[in-house]
Amino acid sequence: MTGPRLVLREKRPQGSRVELAPGVVLGGRAFVVMAGPCAVESAAQIQEAAKAVAEAGCAVLRGGAFKPRTSPYAFQGLGAAGARLLGDAARRHGLLAISEVLDAADLPALEGIAVLQVGARNMHNSALLKTLSQLRRPVLLKRGLSATVEEWLLAAEYLLAGGNEQVILCERGIRTFEPATRNTLDLSAVAIAKQRTHLPVVVDPSHASGLRELIVPLSLAAAAVGADGLLVDVHPHPAEALCDGDQALPPEGLRDLMQRLPGVLAAVDRELWRAPLRRKAV
Amino acid sequence: MTGPRLVLREKRPQGSRVELAPGVVLGGRAFVVMAGPCAVESAAQIQEAAKAVAEAGCAVLRGGAFKPRTSPYAFQGLGAAGARLLGDAARRHGLLAISEVLDAADLPALEGIAVLQVGARNMHNSALLKTLSQLRRPVLLKRGLSATVEEWLLAAEYLLAGGNEQVILCERGIRTFEPATRNTLDLSAVAIAKQRTHLPVVVDPSHASGLRELIVPLSLAAAAVGADGLLVDVHPHPAEALCDGDQALPPEGLRDLMQRLPGVLAAVDRELWRAPLRRKAV
Amino acid sequence: MTGPRLVLREKRPQGSRVELAPGVVLGGRAFVVMAGPCAVESAAQIQEAAKAVAEAGCAVLRGGAFKPRTSPYAFQGLGAAGARLLGDAARRHGLLAISEVLDAADLPALEGIAVLQVGARNMHNSALLKTLSQLRRPVLLKRGLSATVEEWLLAAEYLLAGGNEQVILCERGIRTFEPATRNTLDLSAVAIAKQRTHLPVVVDPSHASGLRELIVPLSLAAAAVGADGLLVDVHPHPAEALCDGDQALPPEGLRDLMQRLPGVLAAVDRELWRAPLRRKAV
Amino acid sequence: MTGPRLVLREKRPQGSRVELAPGVVLGGRAFVVMAGPCAVESAAQIQEAAKAVAEAGCAVLRGGAFKPRTSPYAFQGLGAAGARLLGDAARRHGLLAISEVLDAADLPALEGIAVLQVGARNMHNSALLKTLSQLRRPVLLKRGLSATVEEWLLAAEYLLAGGNEQVILCERGIRTFEPATRNTLDLSAVAIAKQRTHLPVVVDPSHASGLRELIVPLSLAAAAVGADGLLVDVHPHPAEALCDGDQALPPEGLRDLMQRLPGVLAAVDRELWRAPLRRKAV
Repeated sequence: MTGPRLVLREKRPQGSRVELAPGVVLGGRAFVVMAGPCAVESAAQIQEAAKAVAEAGCAVLRGGAFKPRTSPYAFQGLGAAGARLLGDAARRHGLLAISEVLDAADLPALEGIAVLQVGARNMHNSALLKTLSQLRRPVLLKRGLSATVEEWLLAAEYLLAGGNEQVILCERGIRTFEPATRNTLDLSAVAIAKQRTHLPVVVDPSHASGLRELIVPLSLAAAAVGADGLLVDVHPHPAEALCDGDQALPPEGLRDLMQRLPGVLAAVDRELWRAPLRRKAV
Repeated sequence: MTGPRLVLREKRPQGSRVELAPGVVLGGRAFVVMAGPCAVESAAQIQEAAKAVAEAGCAVLRGGAFKPRTSPYAFQGLGAAGARLLGDAARRHGLLAISEVLDAADLPALEGIAVLQVGARNMHNSALLKTLSQLRRPVLLKRGLSATVEEWLLAAEYLLAGGNEQVILCERGIRTFEPATRNTLDLSAVAIAKQRTHLPVVVDPSHASGLRELIVPLSLAAAAVGADGLLVDVHPHPAEALCDGDQALPPEGLRDLMQRLPGVLAAVDRELWRAPLRRKAV
Repeated sequence: MTGPRLVLREKRPQGSRVELAPGVVLGGRAFVVMAGPCAVESAAQIQEAAKAVAEAGCAVLRGGAFKPRTSPYAFQGLGAAGARLLGDAARRHGLLAISEVLDAADLPALEGIAVLQVGARNMHNSALLKTLSQLRRPVLLKRGLSATVEEWLLAAEYLLAGGNEQVILCERGIRTFEPATRNTLDLSAVAIAKQRTHLPVVVDPSHASGLRELIVPLSLAAAAVGADGLLVDVHPHPAEALCDGDQALPPEGLRDLMQRLPGVLAAVDRELWRAPLRRKAV
Repeated sequence: MTGPRLVLREKRPQGSRVELAPGVVLGGRAFVVMAGPCAVESAAQIQEAAKAVAEAGCAVLRGGAFKPRTSPYAFQGLGAAGARLLGDAARRHGLLAISEVLDAADLPALEGIAVLQVGARNMHNSALLKTLSQLRRPVLLKRGLSATVEEWLLAAEYLLAGGNEQVILCERGIRTFEPATRNTLDLSAVAIAKQRTHLPVVVDPSHASGLRELIVPLSLAAAAVGADGLLVDVHPHPAEALCDGDQALPPEGLRDLMQRLPGVLAAVDRELWRAPLRRKAV
């Protein structure tokens, strides 16, 4: 009686499609890669990142402006200024932007951002979910650090129950006893979410593993298991990153990833979304 | 460099004392039991609960008005009306009230509540922590479902860094593989938190175990390990509870608990806070 | 000083190859699928299973004779008789056999079995590992239910330190809080094990998920992430299985899996081992 | 149908009593402390340890002879020689001995040891459990690193089903995401095991926490929650220990613990077993 309803696959057997812009659809046949730095650090940094992301053929630029940091003494993000820089960089390079929202009060500053992200630490923040459910903008909902699949779907249900149907799920690793990776990527959860719900599901291999050298193999695995896209940390100069540099690909790493994805995607009857495709579509 | 600072034991070797009212101190020699229903359901229910809590000799009445539920279809609490009923019931029975805050927007409705509670699901909600850090009211901070002790202390650090020093930590069980209990109560974390920080630490045996028959043994263990108090679910009629009835003590269970605590507390050189003591103090 | 040594990648940068029979190599370019029932139940059942496994083009027949059951009242396997039935069925269908060893005392009964399996529950059983290290037969070492990657590699190190170099690692899911799957398949661990060691690594998607409908997507993901093979539950009549029927593919499911693997494998520059290839090699 | 049977409380509502020697009973009113070094290192070390354990008034001397080490390069124990030294030291100081058995082949060497211990890493080793079920000697069964309470009881059921009724359960911490302690002590599991079974339950605070400064508070909590005894690491010179020195109490720490336990035990209507009591009984 209190289980998920509106998100269930049976409500929309063909799957729902979240259109970020004409021709950029999550949940369709195309696999969408969203890439960019963990945090917007400066105009130069985000412009350089945007250039790399666009050149690699991706559709969406990620970048954190409001950062949910474990410590009050860690870099908290550039806030509204960061959101502005992100939006500018995205527009200049023909990209869409995605950024995290921590609080309803941040929404005005995130006006120019195509996709709002709810981070793992806020998946259970029902007050925030209720506010976002009133919007008609795409929301990417990360799975909580220790949220069961059922709880993740119920968090999505908060969004749909309030009327916002543009919901993308994102698996980003769960907390386990294993110290070799920052979190444990749970690709079974992706397969289950795809079977139980009609929502698109993407994977964040950067936060899941915390290890640059795992991003490519985990991304290929995500494509094989049936995910609809990726959210990947890419930084123009990972060694200088203010946040999570160890898990960011450099621009050449992103290019390599974009070259290796199409083979696996073809094997599961999908294709990689690439910029030229979008230009055609637009 | 981004680790805890202000919460560390060395900043206040004698431990900090959070005075809820004259004579009701968390972190002193007295062990403080906070009890009441998971959710305020009606005026009659909370009055009956308050009567039982006062008669058992407790100082503080708990009751949820704004409820962070996993499902949007579960009872979400009575909101502002619930907070009013809780405050009324507490005052009528000479008790202090504690209730959860989910959102800065709820603060006006929680004016009459002595202690604001941050729930496990919001421990990582830095936006909420920053808001509460600006208040000068006691905040009880529950450990997140899968928060490490370090992260828990850093969440407390957000409160102290903003200037609010009236912080009480609350261990309420962590998420593990074990299905026999709702969560796994981590009493080692209580001992560590007492050693590393100067903050008072209480234990919630109800949410930790989800099992009524474990509340008394776990409460005694909490007292023995060095906790400064308890937060216990008590419902006048557990079988009819709208929320978490299985983990609530009935009034006679609370009386029994209050009779069994003093022996263990004496063995660790503490004493149980009881109403007569407060009357004297006031 | 007590970390892994002989298993490290740097000891054999090109990777080690475990030859089960002429032309059937784990750790080479070919991806090897081992399939069969969780438990040998009868001559008819294992013969039927062997036929299906051979017809699907697999090289290796799995089947449990000595079963490590959680309950003493659960079916404990047919023991020595089961091992004989397994060996017979394998030989009759041109397959190699793999079966679990629980105890040094079982070794004589497992003479005709090509690969000895150490189950997850015995990964930390150093007495058993020391015994197997004295053999010169391939050992498949499953990761323990809650073993870190480091501990898994150290268990393998016991085998190599004793002189047995024919070691295959097997990831079969770890224990987490998530109830949607029996265990949580940790494909990051596969990628890490491939990078840190020279040992071949296979994946058991059946025990990892406990769900038949997840076997195909997880197998494709395992192939994409870089695994060297699979260990899959296949039962001629899953609904009648004495053990773990819910996680077994029926014969047609295995055929489907074998048809879907080559595409993903080609994308990561691998190929599927198939019977005709073996006939040529032999 | 495959759940626990013989271990259930209803089979023996008054609880079972495991008599280690006349007057030394686990599961009775007395709380029994077993103490000693993680590993027997030399005659001098174990004699010194035995002296400290006897002087503190304990009944049982622990000491590892066959050690289940994660790494093949770690100290593996003195084996049969260690078992002999342990037995000698125990006898000389009027103590009983407890030591771990890894393998049926070790049993002859463990003849003089009063209690055989099955370690956490072997809780799922059904071959070993079946062998021990044929003995008529007390067995202390540690909970596996990630064993559910149900699985732990089923492992005990293997012992009782084979006819060995002298079984003592031991909670020693489970594996979770928390890095502050070596494992997470699960005292709820102790309370549940006491309610569900008639078996005595003891707690190992040393392996659970890995931290010397937590041993006393966790031991008091174990006494308060209803445990029947403790298994504690004590080393004459912890800083020089070959194994787990960080979690061992020095002799004066054991004395302090023995002085603090009686108060808590009295509050839960138990008493501490102390040597003079035994002398009387014998």
